[in-house]
Amino acid sequence: MKHLQQPEWSWRDSEGDFVHQWVKPLSDKSPNMVLYGAPISRSSISVSGASLYPLEFRKLWKGFATYNLDEDVDLSSYLVADAGDIAMHTTDILLSHQRIEETTRELVAKYTDATTCLIGGDHSVTACAVRGVNKAFPAERIGILQLDTHLDVRDPAELGPANGTPIRQLIDGGIVRGEDVVNIGLHGYFNAAPLVAYAKEHGIRMVTLRKARELGVAQCVMNDLALLAEKVDRVYVTIDMDVLDIAVAPGVPASTPGGMNAEELFTSLLLIGQHESVRHIDFVCLDPSRDVATSATVKTGVYAWLEFVTGRVISQRGK
Amino acid sequence: MKHLQQPEWSWRDSEGDFVHQWVKPLSDKSPNMVLYGAPISRSSISVSGASLYPLEFRKLWKGFATYNLDEDVDLSSYLVADAGDIAMHTTDILLSHQRIEETTRELVAKYTDATTCLIGGDHSVTACAVRGVNKAFPAERIGILQLDTHLDVRDPAELGPANGTPIRQLIDGGIVRGEDVVNIGLHGYFNAAPLVAYAKEHGIRMVTLRKARELGVAQCVMNDLALLAEKVDRVYVTIDMDVLDIAVAPGVPASTPGGMNAEELFTSLLLIGQHESVRHIDFVCLDPSRDVATSATVKTGVYAWLEFVTGRVISQRGK
Amino acid sequence: MKHLQQPEWSWRDSEGDFVHQWVKPLSDKSPNMVLYGAPISRSSISVSGASLYPLEFRKLWKGFATYNLDEDVDLSSYLVADAGDIAMHTTDILLSHQRIEETTRELVAKYTDATTCLIGGDHSVTACAVRGVNKAFPAERIGILQLDTHLDVRDPAELGPANGTPIRQLIDGGIVRGEDVVNIGLHGYFNAAPLVAYAKEHGIRMVTLRKARELGVAQCVMNDLALLAEKVDRVYVTIDMDVLDIAVAPGVPASTPGGMNAEELFTSLLLIGQHESVRHIDFVCLDPSRDVATSATVKTGVYAWLEFVTGRVISQRGK
Amino acid sequence: MKHLQQPEWSWRDSEGDFVHQWVKPLSDKSPNMVLYGAPISRSSISVSGASLYPLEFRKLWKGFATYNLDEDVDLSSYLVADAGDIAMHTTDILLSHQRIEETTRELVAKYTDATTCLIGGDHSVTACAVRGVNKAFPAERIGILQLDTHLDVRDPAELGPANGTPIRQLIDGGIVRGEDVVNIGLHGYFNAAPLVAYAKEHGIRMVTLRKARELGVAQCVMNDLALLAEKVDRVYVTIDMDVLDIAVAPGVPASTPGGMNAEELFTSLLLIGQHESVRHIDFVCLDPSRDVATSATVKTGVYAWLEFVTGRVISQRGK
Amino acid sequence: MKHLQQPEWSWRDSEGDFVHQWVKPLSDKSPNMVLYGAPISRSSISVSGASLYPLEFRKLWKGFATYNLDEDVDLSSYLVADAGDIAMHTTDILLSHQRIEETTRELVAKYTDATTCLIGGDHSVTACAVRGVNKAFPAERIGILQLDTHLDVRDPAELGPANGTPIRQLIDGGIVRGEDVVNIGLHGYFNAAPLVAYAKEHGIRMVTLRKARELGVAQCVMNDLALLAEKVDRVYVTIDMDVLDIAVAPGVPASTPGGMNAEELFTSLLLIGQHESVRHIDFVCLDPSRDVATSATVKTGVYAWLEFVTGRVISQRGK
Amino acid sequence: MKHLQQPEWSWRDSEGDFVHQWVKPLSDKSPNMVLYGAPISRSSISVSGASLYPLEFRKLWKGFATYNLDEDVDLSSYLVADAGDIAMHTTDILLSHQRIEETTRELVAKYTDATTCLIGGDHSVTACAVRGVNKAFPAERIGILQLDTHLDVRDPAELGPANGTPIRQLIDGGIVRGEDVVNIGLHGYFNAAPLVAYAKEHGIRMVTLRKARELGVAQCVMNDLALLAEKVDRVYVTIDMDVLDIAVAPGVPASTPGGMNAEELFTSLLLIGQHESVRHIDFVCLDPSRDVATSATVKTGVYAWLEFVTGRVISQRGK
Repeated sequence: MKHLQQPEWSWRDSEGDFVHQWVKPLSDKSPNMVLYGAPISRSSISVSGASLYPLEFRKLWKGFATYNLDEDVDLSSYLVADAGDIAMHTTDILLSHQRIEETTRELVAKYTDATTCLIGGDHSVTACAVRGVNKAFPAERIGILQLDTHLDVRDPAELGPANGTPIRQLIDGGIVRGEDVVNIGLHGYFNAAPLVAYAKEHGIRMVTLRKARELGVAQCVMNDLALLAEKVDRVYVTIDMDVLDIAVAPGVPASTPGGMNAEELFTSLLLIGQHESVRHIDFVCLDPSRDVATSATVKTGVYAWLEFVTGRVISQRGK
Repeated sequence: MKHLQQPEWSWRDSEGDFVHQWVKPLSDKSPNMVLYGAPISRSSISVSGASLYPLEFRKLWKGFATYNLDEDVDLSSYLVADAGDIAMHTTDILLSHQRIEETTRELVAKYTDATTCLIGGDHSVTACAVRGVNKAFPAERIGILQLDTHLDVRDPAELGPANGTPIRQLIDGGIVRGEDVVNIGLHGYFNAAPLVAYAKEHGIRMVTLRKARELGVAQCVMNDLALLAEKVDRVYVTIDMDVLDIAVAPGVPASTPGGMNAEELFTSLLLIGQHESVRHIDFVCLDPSRDVATSATVKTGVYAWLEFVTGRVISQRGK
Repeated sequence: MKHLQQPEWSWRDSEGDFVHQWVKPLSDKSPNMVLYGAPISRSSISVSGASLYPLEFRKLWKGFATYNLDEDVDLSSYLVADAGDIAMHTTDILLSHQRIEETTRELVAKYTDATTCLIGGDHSVTACAVRGVNKAFPAERIGILQLDTHLDVRDPAELGPANGTPIRQLIDGGIVRGEDVVNIGLHGYFNAAPLVAYAKEHGIRMVTLRKARELGVAQCVMNDLALLAEKVDRVYVTIDMDVLDIAVAPGVPASTPGGMNAEELFTSLLLIGQHESVRHIDFVCLDPSRDVATSATVKTGVYAWLEFVTGRVISQRGK
Repeated sequence: MKHLQQPEWSWRDSEGDFVHQWVKPLSDKSPNMVLYGAPISRSSISVSGASLYPLEFRKLWKGFATYNLDEDVDLSSYLVADAGDIAMHTTDILLSHQRIEETTRELVAKYTDATTCLIGGDHSVTACAVRGVNKAFPAERIGILQLDTHLDVRDPAELGPANGTPIRQLIDGGIVRGEDVVNIGLHGYFNAAPLVAYAKEHGIRMVTLRKARELGVAQCVMNDLALLAEKVDRVYVTIDMDVLDIAVAPGVPASTPGGMNAEELFTSLLLIGQHESVRHIDFVCLDPSRDVATSATVKTGVYAWLEFVTGRVISQRGK
Repeated sequence: MKHLQQPEWSWRDSEGDFVHQWVKPLSDKSPNMVLYGAPISRSSISVSGASLYPLEFRKLWKGFATYNLDEDVDLSSYLVADAGDIAMHTTDILLSHQRIEETTRELVAKYTDATTCLIGGDHSVTACAVRGVNKAFPAERIGILQLDTHLDVRDPAELGPANGTPIRQLIDGGIVRGEDVVNIGLHGYFNAAPLVAYAKEHGIRMVTLRKARELGVAQCVMNDLALLAEKVDRVYVTIDMDVLDIAVAPGVPASTPGGMNAEELFTSLLLIGQHESVRHIDFVCLDPSRDVATSATVKTGVYAWLEFVTGRVISQRGK
Repeated sequence: MKHLQQPEWSWRDSEGDFVHQWVKPLSDKSPNMVLYGAPISRSSISVSGASLYPLEFRKLWKGFATYNLDEDVDLSSYLVADAGDIAMHTTDILLSHQRIEETTRELVAKYTDATTCLIGGDHSVTACAVRGVNKAFPAERIGILQLDTHLDVRDPAELGPANGTPIRQLIDGGIVRGEDVVNIGLHGYFNAAPLVAYAKEHGIRMVTLRKARELGVAQCVMNDLALLAEKVDRVYVTIDMDVLDIAVAPGVPASTPGGMNAEELFTSLLLIGQHESVRHIDFVCLDPSRDVATSATVKTGVYAWLEFVTGRVISQRGK
């Protein structure tokens, strides 16, 4: 894993009750979760500083305790290993993408029992990471659960491997079947008609936010995840933070009015975390340089990640 | 329509899937909707840059596709003609108001089958526009459906035709009967007791947000709209964007805590758009110069307008 | 009450329909509510300008009418007397705290029939105020209803009487029993495990926001308040504004994602205000220097206070 | 002076070393300076909140001592009487303008020995005030010293009495001769060619900032003021705060790059204040709602005013 | 010139005294200046939205008259043709760079008598543009006058053709000799020692801001330009807006304390514009998405460009 | 030095050309400069987050190279040892102050050949540090060179040891003689008359900014420093960042219009650094939480510190 670098801001040696004291660097000890960052956003169609997120994400750890009061669960027994960030090239986007693919392949192959968690970066990183998983386990069928305002099936032939294209890269590249992709959170006027046509043609399951709310977003997510899990060998979850409403996530350039609220996302992730088939997750498209002075969006990003981890711990405990 | 001017930022010649490519300039072709702006806010009681909204509203069109994914409806078959903005005088507020009245009269008289949509400006424009409709159709009884935090029945004898007075101007002027005005979204401490007394005296139907939520805001709106439609010949809808909660609409100077959320407004407009009696609509009091860096409020304004249009299209399709 | 000073911005002599015309200075006339400020925040663990809140709170009064449209109640018959602000020392925190305690004791002893309302300042003021109440009525058992994201039971031995410690000061000091403290609104990862252990050990009732929402926050608050009222002689309510979600309350340094929304707080306060056992209330930790340009958080603070007052008026009317 | 109202924020009864304790309300005592506000900005061509300046100007007084350390002068012996603000009509701009004219006439006629200082508002107030002076002293020839980025000679026939027109109103109205107007601070690309042609035709003396800097701005101002004073009976000074560079005065909507720096303005005002012929001054076009969080522009406005007052005191002392 | 696209915001058909009415689209008429944009910033080392500058630059034209009052010069006789923006690829940086090179070559070859003015984009565009000039006039020796806080000689072998490398690309590529590069404005701690060593080794003339101020920045620029012009056939001027002080240019990500002030840049450009050897100019690295609410930095960018144009007009007039 | 803690953000192990790679932790190796932080601002009269400065100061090191291009000096041979931050108590201000005094005493006594540099914190830290120096060298006469907008001689009897009192604490406490204090940068209306009277009475040398500029600020500083050095054994320099103009230092709560510009401060520090008698320096009152998005003020703070260091290196080299 030669492309991994220690992050500038990271764990301290001290022990304690807070997240920055709990997460440890990757070591010989077998982790429950491997965390790694892909600080790239020059592959974003519009201007984005999502490359800054992995660093800011870690900086705010010290504001969060490991104890989840809602669930009366302490995360400290669950070992999260921070593998650092993948070194990105300044101008060679394809090379950076290859490094994400290669590093993901190495990590998932080596830490087969661990959940991997990738912190983006823009959404282009998802295509790389899923290809990496595929290379590590070529015989397995991968399903994708996507929480997103957009389909991300724009044409790489036009844009290159930009952040609007990852799902299409994976379908056209034969890595994932369209029918194995579930997108929940779509709404409004943010997917042009030809993209929806592509999605229908390839069997992508599209669940609008309005439809999901009829059942409850979290319940809807669980139902669809259960159906997906029956078909595939492992599920890769990708959380595009632009699924959140613009009032909740001002620091996500592509967030829109009419999006998901924070509680819906948090509860969904709590349940997703409890599902065994889920083996990989990423969080993408949060741009800290656009965030408000309170860092509300980055805090929401950390909270969302911890909800997923809480789900993992509950699941583990249940065994 | 001598006072209409082409907007600075507007349609482009290209064809495509986005709103700025779909809306066309007013031409000989018979439109389904005529859009026009009244860029005035010096009639506002407090400082306001709502005069800047018609321009900013159009600028953000390119971020919206014509395809509504929630409803699986494409708006492109519905012809929206942008008539441009009415020229406002720099200091003569009465003259500006007369131009709004006169232009509205001309547009509604000429495009009798079209829905007219006026983009304000502050709320004073509504009084002008309704008088224009009345002049065009003097024999018809006009009802007003108002989504607003305020009653807007302050006394023009004290303030002149300011933004706090339009409903009173219309009632006292004999243009609209008090009993034909329905205001939904009122809440909190933002209407002094004498104004509420005036409203009660004149039979204005006041529905607080708390009351509306018992049934669901959108359903409540539909019920009241149905009752109103039975009484009148045509309904004029006025959306004061300050009906929205201050957390959702930071770019509306008079928005308050405890207001409507975006989803409630969107769903209401989707249903309002489907109602046949609704012939005119305006959106007022959004001040882009106060908006946050993400343009969240202006985006919400565009989204709200598209929900109304979607309703029109669904209604049309149903025939 | 030698430490009280007239606030810089306050009532005007005029009469009228707005809050700044309704609230009067403390005088011989017997008030229904005594309002007083404790402008201190240098006792806050993290940097805070909550000391500026009492002034900004009063400045925004002129934007609120005394008429509550939701409840069809006018507050003007309820006499709120503004006693001004307690003079705080520039660097001697203990002296400032003693003045809060002493002034509270004097006010509650003198105006026995009135509700007292303290405007903070950071949360350290609550410990002082409750001690003041206890000194005035040493024979009475005091219960605390706390709406807060945090338990505020950190150790004064480590921090001194800082804003994270008030509940522990009161329990360890024998002023209030742990079993007489109810905290509603807790959530997420913002209370380290040892603090929760302390709370459990001392019998503090902890109700997470998620749990409260199952019943409805306001209903849950009422149920717990009823149980508490059975046990104690008087209830002191403390509203830490950080109980609100960070998207709703950007001007509260410790607000977090996943918090209470404004409507939940407002409705709870409307009901709390109607409860006879509630005799004292405070609002703390709102820092106007962090608020957004619209002053959304300070407006929410004024609104919250008025909901409580409305409750009082409804209760009074019912008699 | 029936249109004058006590300002919301103003002097306190206490005595002390700060400006808010020094300025007193207008009373029977004969003042050295009469201060009055004209809170109007709806006559501004572009959106402006300059109507908010008189209030914010007074609010910041408490941050300034009366002692000028540079000049070793204490202002406290100089009596500044605050006459309050002129009541402006909400929508009738002409009526508001008449009130400014009439109030100015009354004030300058009654307090003949005092300097009058008008706090705007937008630049339209200057035309009103100078007409008021003219009505009080019809036999006297009035000269205008203007520090401004703009000529303000746009055509009232086109715009009405807007903020771009005051100098032209006065020249065309025969109140002031073009040759008696000196404008210092002009620069760049902010006066269209026809306006410069008008200025040349009417003999307005135009001194660009670049030219003024060759001699030193303050020295240049003094030379031109001396020449002007020889010709006229009294000099009216108008300071359009947009003469300041945009980096120095972010809270002035029309400020530009390449403008005057604060020191140049301060030193000029110190000297202007010492000149006997100067009898009236105004400060206009500062919009506090656009200011940065530090209130840098409003503070600069207060500082500028105090420099003028210091000049008055030095001049008085010299006698 | 197949890669050129009409800008979204551009000239209007109207005639008038303002810049947006003066600049015309590229047509058969022979222009004095050809303006074109290269909206790319994904080649920037740090996150940048400089790709948005060409659009925002044009939007603000309407706030500037064509008349320069300082110099009593009207620019309207000088024909500026706006060729639009070069289409940039979403992810293929090398392809985008080739298009800049190719388009520049075509423009300078076709409009041999015109000055070309390129609006970036980040500083990587300069390397492309100079190569384009070189391809059009391979026999000519090109000199570079650079106003910049940085040397921009970082190693493309490490970074690829990023914005820190253009001067090194040109020297190492044999397009420009080190001795033909003059950099004025360097200061402080923003060029690591090895970069300075490279510059010395290759004979780049480095003039620190402190040194330039001894003579006066503009005079220093003229002296160095004169020396450079003697050696080369044509001079390419590149203005990295980060040469400006961070207080003046908040909207330039790499601006620093201790930089040039606006007046120094403006006067330098006025003189540069008058120099015959200067045939090409670019303005780079201004990121409108970071600008303050007043758009101070973009306004400074437009002003700077107009100063150069004024110089051209003065020079032309002199003939 | 038991109160010193390793800072959260600090040196990295890597070697390189940037400041964060050059500064090393305090070790056995004898340093040229000992750097230490006192993160306290609850002793500030007005709300301040200056306690956050030591951390933010270090965070920005990576944006600065060790090479000073203006002076052609590389700082890397000068050993700066970062001793970390002094642990401050949450509420016991006196205890925190004692720790600053004690730690300073220990550091200056142990590292007698090193320059000490204290990073505040508010200005109260200066009194503590000077007392610490005095305790280490009781026989020596200490002079103070203060660059400040304020005299800081308010009465501790009224305020306690707040940030407005340090110079008075030292004079009244007999640590420093009034005649050994030089304050340069005073201006405007920010020191009430009684404070100036105190300063005159005790012989403090007051040099206004206007007076200093007649000679040039840096030259004036040198002259006064030379005179001071003749009288005393060692000079303690205290830089209150509020000496800077509010346009330059928006992140300093007490900065004002009419202050020093950055270049004047930088050049002064370059010369101060070269003076042998200067043995201690502090930088205080910079509040990063108020800074603008570009971090302009913190960058200015780092730059200012490096200018002082450059002066030290030049001085060292000269030997």
